Amino acid sequence: MSYSEVKKGLAPGTVLYAGKRKVDSILIESVIFDKNTISEETLTDVSKLEYKCDSDDIQWVTITGLHDSKMVEQIGSSFGIHNLVLEDILNTDHRPKVDFYSDYIYILFKSLSYNRSETAIEQEQISILLGRNFVLCFCEKDHTLFKSIRERLRVAGSKFRASGADYLAYTLMDVIIDHYFIVIEKISDKLDYYEEKIISGNHKGILNKIYLLKRQNLSITNSIWPLRELISQIERSDSGLIKKANHIYFRDLYDHTIQIIDKINVYRELLTAIIDLHLSESGNRTNEVMKVLTIISTIFIPLTFIAGVYGMNFKFMPELQVHWAYYAVIGLMAALAVLMLIYFRRKKWL
Amino acid sequence: MSYSEVKKGLAPGTVLYAGKRKVDSILIESVIFDKNTISEETLTDVSKLEYKCDSDDIQWVTITGLHDSKMVEQIGSSFGIHNLVLEDILNTDHRPKVDFYSDYIYILFKSLSYNRSETAIEQEQISILLGRNFVLCFCEKDHTLFKSIRERLRVAGSKFRASGADYLAYTLMDVIIDHYFIVIEKISDKLDYYEEKIISGNHKGILNKIYLLKRQNLSITNSIWPLRELISQIERSDSGLIKKANHIYFRDLYDHTIQIIDKINVYRELLTAIIDLHLSESGNRTNEVMKVLTIISTIFIPLTFIAGVYGMNFKFMPELQVHWAYYAVIGLMAALAVLMLIYFRRKKWL
Amino acid sequence: MSYSEVKKGLAPGTVLYAGKRKVDSILIESVIFDKNTISEETLTDVSKLEYKCDSDDIQWVTITGLHDSKMVEQIGSSFGIHNLVLEDILNTDHRPKVDFYSDYIYILFKSLSYNRSETAIEQEQISILLGRNFVLCFCEKDHTLFKSIRERLRVAGSKFRASGADYLAYTLMDVIIDHYFIVIEKISDKLDYYEEKIISGNHKGILNKIYLLKRQNLSITNSIWPLRELISQIERSDSGLIKKANHIYFRDLYDHTIQIIDKINVYRELLTAIIDLHLSESGNRTNEVMKVLTIISTIFIPLTFIAGVYGMNFKFMPELQVHWAYYAVIGLMAALAVLMLIYFRRKKWL
Amino acid sequence: MSYSEVKKGLAPGTVLYAGKRKVDSILIESVIFDKNTISEETLTDVSKLEYKCDSDDIQWVTITGLHDSKMVEQIGSSFGIHNLVLEDILNTDHRPKVDFYSDYIYILFKSLSYNRSETAIEQEQISILLGRNFVLCFCEKDHTLFKSIRERLRVAGSKFRASGADYLAYTLMDVIIDHYFIVIEKISDKLDYYEEKIISGNHKGILNKIYLLKRQNLSITNSIWPLRELISQIERSDSGLIKKANHIYFRDLYDHTIQIIDKINVYRELLTAIIDLHLSESGNRTNEVMKVLTIISTIFIPLTFIAGVYGMNFKFMPELQVHWAYYAVIGLMAALAVLMLIYFRRKKWL
Amino acid sequence: MSYSEVKKGLAPGTVLYAGKRKVDSILIESVIFDKNTISEETLTDVSKLEYKCDSDDIQWVTITGLHDSKMVEQIGSSFGIHNLVLEDILNTDHRPKVDFYSDYIYILFKSLSYNRSETAIEQEQISILLGRNFVLCFCEKDHTLFKSIRERLRVAGSKFRASGADYLAYTLMDVIIDHYFIVIEKISDKLDYYEEKIISGNHKGILNKIYLLKRQNLSITNSIWPLRELISQIERSDSGLIKKANHIYFRDLYDHTIQIIDKINVYRELLTAIIDLHLSESGNRTNEVMKVLTIISTIFIPLTFIAGVYGMNFKFMPELQVHWAYYAVIGLMAALAVLMLIYFRRKKWL
Repeated sequence: MSYSEVKKGLAPGTVLYAGKRKVDSILIESVIFDKNTISEETLTDVSKLEYKCDSDDIQWVTITGLHDSKMVEQIGSSFGIHNLVLEDILNTDHRPKVDFYSDYIYILFKSLSYNRSETAIEQEQISILLGRNFVLCFCEKDHTLFKSIRERLRVAGSKFRASGADYLAYTLMDVIIDHYFIVIEKISDKLDYYEEKIISGNHKGILNKIYLLKRQNLSITNSIWPLRELISQIERSDSGLIKKANHIYFRDLYDHTIQIIDKINVYRELLTAIIDLHLSESGNRTNEVMKVLTIISTIFIPLTFIAGVYGMNFKFMPELQVHWAYYAVIGLMAALAVLMLIYFRRKKWL
Repeated sequence: MSYSEVKKGLAPGTVLYAGKRKVDSILIESVIFDKNTISEETLTDVSKLEYKCDSDDIQWVTITGLHDSKMVEQIGSSFGIHNLVLEDILNTDHRPKVDFYSDYIYILFKSLSYNRSETAIEQEQISILLGRNFVLCFCEKDHTLFKSIRERLRVAGSKFRASGADYLAYTLMDVIIDHYFIVIEKISDKLDYYEEKIISGNHKGILNKIYLLKRQNLSITNSIWPLRELISQIERSDSGLIKKANHIYFRDLYDHTIQIIDKINVYRELLTAIIDLHLSESGNRTNEVMKVLTIISTIFIPLTFIAGVYGMNFKFMPELQVHWAYYAVIGLMAALAVLMLIYFRRKKWL
Repeated sequence: MSYSEVKKGLAPGTVLYAGKRKVDSILIESVIFDKNTISEETLTDVSKLEYKCDSDDIQWVTITGLHDSKMVEQIGSSFGIHNLVLEDILNTDHRPKVDFYSDYIYILFKSLSYNRSETAIEQEQISILLGRNFVLCFCEKDHTLFKSIRERLRVAGSKFRASGADYLAYTLMDVIIDHYFIVIEKISDKLDYYEEKIISGNHKGILNKIYLLKRQNLSITNSIWPLRELISQIERSDSGLIKKANHIYFRDLYDHTIQIIDKINVYRELLTAIIDLHLSESGNRTNEVMKVLTIISTIFIPLTFIAGVYGMNFKFMPELQVHWAYYAVIGLMAALAVLMLIYFRRKKWL
Repeated sequence: MSYSEVKKGLAPGTVLYAGKRKVDSILIESVIFDKNTISEETLTDVSKLEYKCDSDDIQWVTITGLHDSKMVEQIGSSFGIHNLVLEDILNTDHRPKVDFYSDYIYILFKSLSYNRSETAIEQEQISILLGRNFVLCFCEKDHTLFKSIRERLRVAGSKFRASGADYLAYTLMDVIIDHYFIVIEKISDKLDYYEEKIISGNHKGILNKIYLLKRQNLSITNSIWPLRELISQIERSDSGLIKKANHIYFRDLYDHTIQIIDKINVYRELLTAIIDLHLSESGNRTNEVMKVLTIISTIFIPLTFIAGVYGMNFKFMPELQVHWAYYAVIGLMAALAVLMLIYFRRKKWL
Repeated sequence: MSYSEVKKGLAPGTVLYAGKRKVDSILIESVIFDKNTISEETLTDVSKLEYKCDSDDIQWVTITGLHDSKMVEQIGSSFGIHNLVLEDILNTDHRPKVDFYSDYIYILFKSLSYNRSETAIEQEQISILLGRNFVLCFCEKDHTLFKSIRERLRVAGSKFRASGADYLAYTLMDVIIDHYFIVIEKISDKLDYYEEKIISGNHKGILNKIYLLKRQNLSITNSIWPLRELISQIERSDSGLIKKANHIYFRDLYDHTIQIIDKINVYRELLTAIIDLHLSESGNRTNEVMKVLTIISTIFIPLTFIAGVYGMNFKFMPELQVHWAYYAVIGLMAALAVLMLIYFRRKKWL
């Protein structure tokens, strides 16, 4: 049942998950840290989660698994999140966006990865809520994405620990965008592979694959294209939640996004060019096949006709009685064939 | 008779319906409510309609069926609507737009649905007039569209009942846009179906269907594309008729519209790609057919010629008398055929 | 002699007509009216034209036929029109535009109509000069275009009579744009007709016609596209010549123009899609023709070869003497044919 | 040696001509005029040129031939021109632009004309320097371009003589743009000619010509497209060098440029459409050729096979002895042929 | 190992080189100059580099070779460069950009050159850091690029020596952009060569080459396109690091960039047009091959059938006994052939 069918007729702001259940049980990872101390919790029961919204520590909560909309609502109300935002968190078909609220910023990203058989690109929706001293992160299934960040956080006294919630949110976005490059490079590799195959004349069944690649490239466009505007909005925003000193990092994210968009555009054009190349090569091959057929037919069909004429059983065919007639006819045939060959040579078919 | 022919020569602002009569009788549904009370009326005679423009209650009137332009004029004058607006309400070929007047906002939407045979997308024009304490809604034929809203309104003491006319107008627009997703998903399903068929080599008569899908996708573009600007205008407007607190809902509508436009664009590109794929596959098949023809012809036409030569009836053909000549000729033919096969293998035709 | 050749080397602002003479004699129609009185004159001699520039009445002069540049100059100087404007009035190849002068607004429109054989769209340049209390209208040939307006003006005491020169100019533009819809609908009808023909497999000579339609659609684009900007400029202008209350009418014109542009764009895309459809269908048909040829050839050419072999006249061909050999060969041939048919069935050619 | 090779490694601002020498000797034409007096000089030696920069007269100097970079430098320093401007004057591969300096405006235009064989469009760079009381004009070779302006200047007491240096610069630009129309019309004529040829089925060698026309149309795009922005900049500039009263003339230039750009765009689209038309027609013709081949082959190949069977020399072929067998076989063949024809008629191939 | 794989999981701002080591040893060239004095050093060991940041001399340091990220970090910290900038310097896959910091401007360019076999365009990333009195320049491998600048700097008392660090940075960018023209011209030459080959009918293997050229043209687009915005930003910036008097030089750079972008766009369109031309020509040739095949087949297949009929061995075939039958049949065959030829002539196939 698709999201639109589920939602039809419900009031806006109804918090409801309509994606497929992608994990067995929901995993809640909470990290509370300041410059000196850090405490980590891993829970599967939301009721045991501590809220530190009012302290000066920074709390980072990652919720992996969205099938329990009740739980999302509960966490949302603890952190004071608007119902429309919760609705968007659970609408996993949403396009990337950023919304600025007075107390928090809501950032919706897509994480991209190739599926195991490399036939399709899977999208996972990741919602980041950046408050003054908390970062909430809702993932659909992959809780390993931010593992490296957790490790870096554990280093006591690091600049990271002192950089605030906005810097933490930035690192989360940075990790997601770094993963785009991996997908992008796989597309590039496939493209090179198909290109080489076509140029070397090996076209067998390659068209469907190129079409699939085109579709993959197209499908990620919609996830990445809005980031350009999105990150630019964050960078230019005057929200007090992002410190001026950290704007430079969002500028860096912006550069990376533009770079990815550039590549996607190049791949799109190359894919079109490759299909054209394939079509042309295909036309050329048809042409060559035709030429062989035409040359052979054009030479032998008239000769066969001549042979046919002297195979007729008419009683009165004076040539048949002539002693050298057979040789003459053979000679005539040879001459005809040679003339044809000269004609084809003239036409540059040989 | 088309609208342009009907209107030609008439003064602008002439209130006249030129669409086809789509319902038997006009249905007028009026709901008057405030936080605590609600009263509903269903009429077919406009003269019996109560007007509550001056009270603090909110009045929501839905008129289904537009063939009686007199009635539209009468309702219009009761609510103080400009004649050009009434003209637009009846011009069912109009494109979506929003016009801000001092006392009301005029919003023109299109409702989309597939026809029963799923061969075309039907458009129904829906005009929403949002005043300080009234919402007028003119539909062409489908009065069930807003049924769920009516049900939610009946819940006494709900936030909805207290949210004002602007929130009501928003829910109407939300319902219409939610219906777009259903159409969009049907297009997506068809696309997937055709794609799979082409990739599995089943092309029979698929081209006309893809063309029709392309046409359907194109036809809804014009109904949806203007919404982007339209909703953005509403959101950014400083009209007193839309409360600041409700801006967030229109922002949500805007997001949904962008999402739909994104999808339409992807479908457009996929349709083009699918047609290209079909063309390429078609070219490939022609090529393969050609190859079979060429291989068979190129092998047997020369052999037939040789047979023809020895079928000639010349009196003096010394070979014919040679004892092993028949076997030699058969051997020659076999050798020729083998050579040809080797040649084709070299050309990678086999 | 084209306009550019005529103008080359002349000073800018030289008032000169270089179009073809399209009417036999110039027709001048003058209407002078206020709320209560109206007087109409039809002249062929400009010297007899009354000028009422200084009175409070509104004067509407329509000049049909532009081949007498002297006369245009004379009228122009009577109403105080700049020479560059007069040059533009006579340069019938000009693109639509609006120029704001302190005493008048110059609006250049194109009227569109299909020619009698419906093979081309004819453009007629219409120049409208809107002053404080006059409207000048220069047409190339068709003086019946504004007949309905003249009739509506004759209704004494109507709102129209009291609405000023700017409203009159608006109605002129409205009539011209209403005529666009007629052309647009004819294009739509042709498109549907060609589409149906192609889908039903009737392609005979349709390509040239689609090309002509494409050309027609393209040719009107340039006449209509600039209107979007043009009317928007009028609407947003702060020229005192257009009353604030009438802005709403120009907004209405703007909506109509957008609607027409939307349609032209859809037709353009559909035309491209139809040509693609035609190409694909054509390729499919070639493919089918090829298949029939290949199947017949591939079955019979080898069989004919076998027959040829046993038609050879060698003295020593032991098979020929065998009693059941003929039946064996016929059987062999039948078997071969059946095998081929099975092969083609496998290839899905049958 | 191309410009980039010549310039590589030289300091920016190095005044150096790298085009081909296009005239034998440099021609300097100086006109000095005010309302009442006019004096003309034609020189080939720059040292004899009078400078009137400080007087109130207007001096118009046209330099035809740019191969002497020394001379250009000398004139430049006399009029106080920046070295980067002089570099641009001699870089004849530059794109059109306008640069505003405090004492002068530098305008770089391209003059277009078809070469004699009408196979290519030649571009000539024309640099116009507009000062308070001087206009410098650097041409590559054609000194006849501005002949008509010189003649109009000679008319004593004309408005032209009193209109200042900015009006003179305008007339120069106007002449160049008027010449564009001639090129544009030649492209239009060619387009019509090729179109008619293709529609009437005469395709011989037309493709290369259309390609060349496409290339020509493309090549002028780059010379004309920037004018839109360029002239608009001049019109909107607040440089004291262009009198407010003359802005209307630059507005007129702007209109002409837009008109030309519109036409180029239409031609581009038509060229694409014509090539598509040609391709389709070509595909149709292939299809028809195929049909003839298929019909003939499909009818006669089976018949020939039957004839071949009864041409076999088996000793025991009972049919051969039957009296009416020959007629029966002929009848069978005729029936087969008729069946085939019916089949083709069904397929609409006949 | 690609950059994205190397970086994945590392903190942003980690200074790390992931390109291929392109030079054996790092080369550091330092030039310190003022109007009167100049001193040059060439080192391979960064620890021996003098820093003159605090003096009034201008220091220009060029580092060729980036594989030692330690060294880049050391230089960076000496000149006070942000870690994110150092990261970008080493990320040689970065797109061109400019970043304004309070103490320096960071400009990232790409230098382009054809590889030796002219089959691909090589990109080298060049980072320019412009401070108040220093210019840092990081190259990947080619230290000869700026040789000419070094030579011009050695001229004592030249304007160059007195023009400040911003002018030096400009000349570096100017040299890089001048090199673009060389690449651009090579593309143009190749394009002309392929075009001529196709028009003269020599298509052998040209398609792959055109595809490669298309790919090359596409690949440089991404390096050059951002420069438009980049240089415009520098020109419009109010950074105190670029003197107002030097803005004109950046304007000049901007013009050159636009010129290159124009050319790339034209080449892109020409490449598309050439491929279309090739396809059409290919289609035409197929058509011609088909015609020859069809004409020969259509004439001789029926004739061969007739010969076959009279080659049958029926006992009772009265015609065979007729004296003139043989001549009659030959005549019939000739007549048939002539009729066919007339038919083909009518069809314009001959």
